[in-house]
Amino acid sequence: MALEGSVAFDDALRALEAHYLAMPPVAAMQPRIGGYDGERLTLVAPLSLHVNDKDCAFGGSLVSLMTLASWGLVTLKVKEAGLDADVFVADTDVRYLAPLYADLEAESSLDEGASWETFITTLRERGRARTTLACRVPLPEGGIATEARARYVAILRR
Amino acid sequence: MALEGSVAFDDALRALEAHYLAMPPVAAMQPRIGGYDGERLTLVAPLSLHVNDKDCAFGGSLVSLMTLASWGLVTLKVKEAGLDADVFVADTDVRYLAPLYADLEAESSLDEGASWETFITTLRERGRARTTLACRVPLPEGGIATEARARYVAILRR
Repeated sequence: MALEGSVAFDDALRALEAHYLAMPPVAAMQPRIGGYDGERLTLVAPLSLHVNDKDCAFGGSLVSLMTLASWGLVTLKVKEAGLDADVFVADTDVRYLAPLYADLEAESSLDEGASWETFITTLRERGRARTTLACRVPLPEGGIATEARARYVAILRR
Repeated sequence: MALEGSVAFDDALRALEAHYLAMPPVAAMQPRIGGYDGERLTLVAPLSLHVNDKDCAFGGSLVSLMTLASWGLVTLKVKEAGLDADVFVADTDVRYLAPLYADLEAESSLDEGASWETFITTLRERGRARTTLACRVPLPEGGIATEARARYVAILRR
């Protein structure tokens, strides 16, 4: 929020995109940051690279993009707080609700009941914190293709 | 089991591998069938293509390989029964237990309490069936890097 519209905000998103593309399996997915408003991070990727045998989006690609979106959101929040931490995914529950025949879009935000303030305070005080993210892949016609809840852990670097 | 060691067994595995590689996001992962004994299907993929920013296996790649292994096992079982069906993943619960600094290996088998006989009988009689698979990525030093339980649905083609 503090960074929105500022040079630092743009720099943070550019750094995150570069971070993604430095990972070989992620570069192969060609994800782009579709938007970030301080609370919700959206990643997009072209369907052509992610089609399965039924001409819709491959389940593995959907999970990968959702994992990257939530990991990216936690990473942005840690950096916005001026902290330096490694961020890990701990677990993920995915529900595939409907096939997606369009470009992939994964929208990540904090899960209901979770708080960035608590997460950052805990990370700062204990050197380690955990939070839950909710991510969804919308259908272009309305509704949801795939949704996930995932827990992420951040550990301060020494 | 019936097909093991036979020409049909080898043909089925070759067809499955070709099916995998026909999907662009899967071809980019370079998975190979590491083994199949009639009950357990193992897929392998090189770490070099799947490293994250911490030089270990990317979570999205681990889920993708596990998803492919379980999907492939259901597909093989449907074909062994002489049936023609589309196979879909319905949901997946993943636990990331330890980082993996070696090539990826995903071993899929039927979950405890599930039965291929029930699954195939239901599919044959009702045109649709659902079952649960368990998949794990072992650590080379022993123990488990990542494990998943996932439900798959098969629907007979008309």
